[in-house]
Amino acid sequence: MPLEALRYDLTPTGLHYVLTHFDIPNIDPERWRLQIRGSVLRRVELSLNEIRLLPAVRMPVTLECAGNGRSRLTPRPRSQPWIEEACSTAVWTGVPLKTVLAQAGPHPETVEVVFWGADHGIQDGHAHTYGRSLDPEHAMRPEILLAYEMNGRPLEPQHGAPLRLVVPGWYGMASVKWLTSIEAIEEPFKGFQQSVAYRYQREENDPGSPVTAIRPRALMVPPGIPETFSRRRRVDSGRVSLTGRAWSGTGSIVRVEVGIDGVWHDADLGEQMGEFTWRGWSFDWDARTGDHVLSCRATDAEGEVQPLEQPWNFQGMGNNTVQTVHVCVV
Amino acid sequence: MPLEALRYDLTPTGLHYVLTHFDIPNIDPERWRLQIRGSVLRRVELSLNEIRLLPAVRMPVTLECAGNGRSRLTPRPRSQPWIEEACSTAVWTGVPLKTVLAQAGPHPETVEVVFWGADHGIQDGHAHTYGRSLDPEHAMRPEILLAYEMNGRPLEPQHGAPLRLVVPGWYGMASVKWLTSIEAIEEPFKGFQQSVAYRYQREENDPGSPVTAIRPRALMVPPGIPETFSRRRRVDSGRVSLTGRAWSGTGSIVRVEVGIDGVWHDADLGEQMGEFTWRGWSFDWDARTGDHVLSCRATDAEGEVQPLEQPWNFQGMGNNTVQTVHVCVV
Repeated sequence: MPLEALRYDLTPTGLHYVLTHFDIPNIDPERWRLQIRGSVLRRVELSLNEIRLLPAVRMPVTLECAGNGRSRLTPRPRSQPWIEEACSTAVWTGVPLKTVLAQAGPHPETVEVVFWGADHGIQDGHAHTYGRSLDPEHAMRPEILLAYEMNGRPLEPQHGAPLRLVVPGWYGMASVKWLTSIEAIEEPFKGFQQSVAYRYQREENDPGSPVTAIRPRALMVPPGIPETFSRRRRVDSGRVSLTGRAWSGTGSIVRVEVGIDGVWHDADLGEQMGEFTWRGWSFDWDARTGDHVLSCRATDAEGEVQPLEQPWNFQGMGNNTVQTVHVCVV
Repeated sequence: MPLEALRYDLTPTGLHYVLTHFDIPNIDPERWRLQIRGSVLRRVELSLNEIRLLPAVRMPVTLECAGNGRSRLTPRPRSQPWIEEACSTAVWTGVPLKTVLAQAGPHPETVEVVFWGADHGIQDGHAHTYGRSLDPEHAMRPEILLAYEMNGRPLEPQHGAPLRLVVPGWYGMASVKWLTSIEAIEEPFKGFQQSVAYRYQREENDPGSPVTAIRPRALMVPPGIPETFSRRRRVDSGRVSLTGRAWSGTGSIVRVEVGIDGVWHDADLGEQMGEFTWRGWSFDWDARTGDHVLSCRATDAEGEVQPLEQPWNFQGMGNNTVQTVHVCVV
């Protein structure tokens, strides 16, 4: 999502960031079925039409890729070289996961609920199908959706058609696309994308800790006009309305500060569309001729604040270092 | 557009490739007007509603970025590092340009018709608004559209909302997005994106020749499954249906060949949706265990054939060297 698209409350569908590990699967929605299986009282199989007949929820959610900010780490970790553009907000329509789980009735011995996608490939020598798990308590939370519409239209192929999981507040790896089955298991899940990928590791052999909730981040719409290749900005002097968005999966946004050449000022906070969406902010800047460095920094209700510097991690995950925008005022 | 999306006759809107030189402009469609001005009998100003009331045309068109294939040149020229994914097909709805030009009545002295977008920025030190021209005869061709819908919906911001030009058969730089005015001029157009950018140059100081029609290209849906980082493919042995698309702006596609380890075979050609769209092709391959290099090569009715090697050019334009896909059959 190019950062000027922070101007939209809802990201246009085709600008919503996309991260795929493998190819976008080719699924015929007429023949597709969702299976709920494993350690359950009743094995359940549902068609898309059957899922659409269940009571639906419509909810705006800000999603962010766990690798967002990766390119700001030195040396740059392998994988998608996001700068800061892998964040977006959409309205998702679907069925609460708990509704469907209740039909199957997971056994009390269930320790994890695994979500399997249709995407399949090889990563670091391991051929596998994309799968991720949640603990049963988390899986029963009311905000977790099995979504079949995005911004009022059937899911586009790249966003997980015909059905995907949406886990508000967590980085995007948890929101499994192209869902084919949900499996209750009685042992911890050891899938590649859970136990090897998406971990905070100091170095390659560090088992690390799992990537979970979205860390707080504020971003600004870069002001002025860009230079095509460097993306440096030229801004006319005078009053400039700086605007942007801030979000966090660990608590509500309670403060956004704007840094002008290292001096911090409180920004005005706007309304928030929903519990799991970004919040607008704005700050009027009196731009004087010369080069300046602008930044912004979010704080959430849990007291989590964006860092000015980030310790490097092997997979380049969760880098929420404050954004810096270099501008030349003329 | 990830190449597995070659499977769709029409590229889903959010998978259609996008190239922007500057920021996506923020345009209020209610206040937006199109002006037709310059060397004309009658200066014309049209609102979006007025344009929507004119007789409309609906047409599928394959577009391709002039820089597609750039990353396959060594050394890699500066600018968007496309491999081969900057090509897509959409159905565009709009008014023939000639309908609107006729309202204004260009003077006989007109030598070029210039299309101005709303996008503005700096490239190689030149602050400018994106603009491109066509000669008057080309501008009056019936297939050239002022489009306000893509795949049956209003244009998304990144695709030129509220109105864009669509020039079928030419590389995408001609299909100016976010149109604000059309200007008939009596001298050759010297705009940056016409006289400096989008030229075939042997080296930086070569004035070069303009980039115009799309050169022939065939691409295949990469078979099998990918490795996340290398995108190398693993394919199961046995009969593999290789499929893809081919297109050309210089003539209809009359032949597609598939190369298996350098030996060429004729592929079967499919139907074509329209005069300016890609054409499907398929070839059954008996895949034997081991490493193989697959390729495909298009020929058009004018006898233009994709090259196996391409002379380097400074801007990395129009590189239609045949695609090669490395697969390991197991």
